[in-house]
Amino acid sequence: MATQRILDFLATRRPDGPCLVVDLDVVRDNYLAFEKALPDSRIFYAVKANPAPEILRLLASLGSSFDTASVAEIEMALDAGAAPARISYGNTIKKERDVARAHELGIRLFAVDCVEEVDKIARRAPGARVFCRVLTDGAGAEWPLSRKFGCAPAMAVDVLRHAKSLGLDAHGVSFHVGSQQTDLDAWDRALADAQWVFGTLAEEGITLKMVNMGGGFPTRYLRDVPAAQAYGQAIFSALRKHFGNRIPETIIEPGRGMVGNAGVIKSEVVLISRKAENDNVRWVYLDIGKFGGLAETMDEAIRYPFVTPRDGGETAPCVLAGPTCDSADVLYEKTPYPLPLALTIGDEVLIEGTGAYTTTYASVAFNGFEPLKAYVI
Amino acid sequence: MATQRILDFLATRRPDGPCLVVDLDVVRDNYLAFEKALPDSRIFYAVKANPAPEILRLLASLGSSFDTASVAEIEMALDAGAAPARISYGNTIKKERDVARAHELGIRLFAVDCVEEVDKIARRAPGARVFCRVLTDGAGAEWPLSRKFGCAPAMAVDVLRHAKSLGLDAHGVSFHVGSQQTDLDAWDRALADAQWVFGTLAEEGITLKMVNMGGGFPTRYLRDVPAAQAYGQAIFSALRKHFGNRIPETIIEPGRGMVGNAGVIKSEVVLISRKAENDNVRWVYLDIGKFGGLAETMDEAIRYPFVTPRDGGETAPCVLAGPTCDSADVLYEKTPYPLPLALTIGDEVLIEGTGAYTTTYASVAFNGFEPLKAYVI
Repeated sequence: MATQRILDFLATRRPDGPCLVVDLDVVRDNYLAFEKALPDSRIFYAVKANPAPEILRLLASLGSSFDTASVAEIEMALDAGAAPARISYGNTIKKERDVARAHELGIRLFAVDCVEEVDKIARRAPGARVFCRVLTDGAGAEWPLSRKFGCAPAMAVDVLRHAKSLGLDAHGVSFHVGSQQTDLDAWDRALADAQWVFGTLAEEGITLKMVNMGGGFPTRYLRDVPAAQAYGQAIFSALRKHFGNRIPETIIEPGRGMVGNAGVIKSEVVLISRKAENDNVRWVYLDIGKFGGLAETMDEAIRYPFVTPRDGGETAPCVLAGPTCDSADVLYEKTPYPLPLALTIGDEVLIEGTGAYTTTYASVAFNGFEPLKAYVI
Repeated sequence: MATQRILDFLATRRPDGPCLVVDLDVVRDNYLAFEKALPDSRIFYAVKANPAPEILRLLASLGSSFDTASVAEIEMALDAGAAPARISYGNTIKKERDVARAHELGIRLFAVDCVEEVDKIARRAPGARVFCRVLTDGAGAEWPLSRKFGCAPAMAVDVLRHAKSLGLDAHGVSFHVGSQQTDLDAWDRALADAQWVFGTLAEEGITLKMVNMGGGFPTRYLRDVPAAQAYGQAIFSALRKHFGNRIPETIIEPGRGMVGNAGVIKSEVVLISRKAENDNVRWVYLDIGKFGGLAETMDEAIRYPFVTPRDGGETAPCVLAGPTCDSADVLYEKTPYPLPLALTIGDEVLIEGTGAYTTTYASVAFNGFEPLKAYVI
């Protein structure tokens, strides 16, 4: 997945230390694939996945909208050229003063999942559109989905009714099937819940208009994943099944699916050792770890593909760890990673599929190590 | 544990957003308590716990030495006024060019746990002192201790013999009993291993001189922990038991024990909600979470004390979560946290015992949120 442009950049520039290189051509291809797969859905790029200005500018120029998590992300999307009408404040957890600030910046679309959040928006962004997130079970997703966001469908009805009563535009329902979701049926189950909320409120004369189908679109790590086209078909079928010929406006919020496979991290083998003479597991220490950008290896959730200059020869299982003095900074230990026996201290290792959820997770300076550098080409 | 000075600072300055406030008087008291409890040990402050320049300068002025994890931390310790002879490069995972850079800066004391690392030091820091870290089981520690650092005692003998053969000073043995270690016997078990390495090499005519007893000294979170004096007595007894009247030079490396209880994080309640009408668990969302400085809540390992303006009234269990759009950004869910029923959105919450391992863990900008600010007073 390291494109020729990325390989050429690394060969020519020889950057020192670990770094991420993102190929904008891949981002463009991903955007066009989503557009083609779901032609009737508006695409809101999840800025949190990778807020590099070059990525935001490219997507803004392609016509993308933006899902943001904070006022800072709203400002980044505006700076990239997106009009306020193309920006959603998608975090269900907002300080009231941040709601006010977003409203000042022209934002009119807000996520909620409880009446308390509706109250804030009614006070500080009067008349705005709100959509209520409903809980899903997250089955089939690789990155854990807790109950942190969303509420039960029955409560979503109350929340949206409350919004309407306060003069807000009860605009729709959102859900998230869980990140790196490879089970196509997950959208079907969530859309059934969304339709139930639509139908229940319609009986009271409240007409919802929009379903925000969130993200979850996977990127390819070690296993093949269904292509955007397959997701598009599955989602369209589910919409048709649940909403008949009254399909609402829809939104998708790809993040990982938009930029994950566009980036490669260049790393270096700092040390290879064993813990005892007769130990049959090697420990391989890289110059990047859990606190330097690979936070998604938490509980070994995301398993990245590694490319080494010794590939092709015999391999043996390794424990992979980062460079810090933190014993929790271990990437893969429960399921050791097969790496070439010939791997040597100083070798350059490419970590593929790292365009999303890496740079911004990096710690500011843990153990004195600099945050992950990024080059967008 | 919020001192009057910290409370006065917060009341006067009213900083916006989450922030850490560290009281240097507490750091000074902790240093003096370690010095009194272990009068024959040199104190190497673990810079990674909190590298704030004010803390490093205070400790340098008190006579502390410094345990560093990277060239950047070495430079910080030097900038704070520590002479190179008072700095240890304590990371067992070092790039060879970083060993060279440390040597140029005057560093002569290096940690190793394998022959490969010894080779780097022999090439780039000829004649330096090395100490070999041995594995311990970490039983009794609250923060997980993996097998990432150290080697079996039998291998430590080989590693130190190898160092000697390459012209290095085979200086001693180190261990780490695991962070937030409350079992006083942990040091006894580790010192038994250290003595075995000393004795085995002595038979070959190699005389080790130093035992680095690492950190692990706990700070008080929710439960009382033994005082420095109790650790001092337990460690001295164990040294006497295993080394008789030939007690070697000793080093300790407190980090959490030096600064943990000196800091308090000021946070704000952003949202309190439920997931369904009949839900009996409230979700309390703060403006700081796992990616904003509270990384040690990973797997709910460290349980911080919270102080709210509603304390004293009736409490009920809450799930505590951070402000980001990441479903993994939940602090306490498996074991919900009892908080006052009267707790209200906008309330200021103090998180105590947060002077160590918070600011530097914070992500650069996850979800657009700024890294944790710190004030050292």
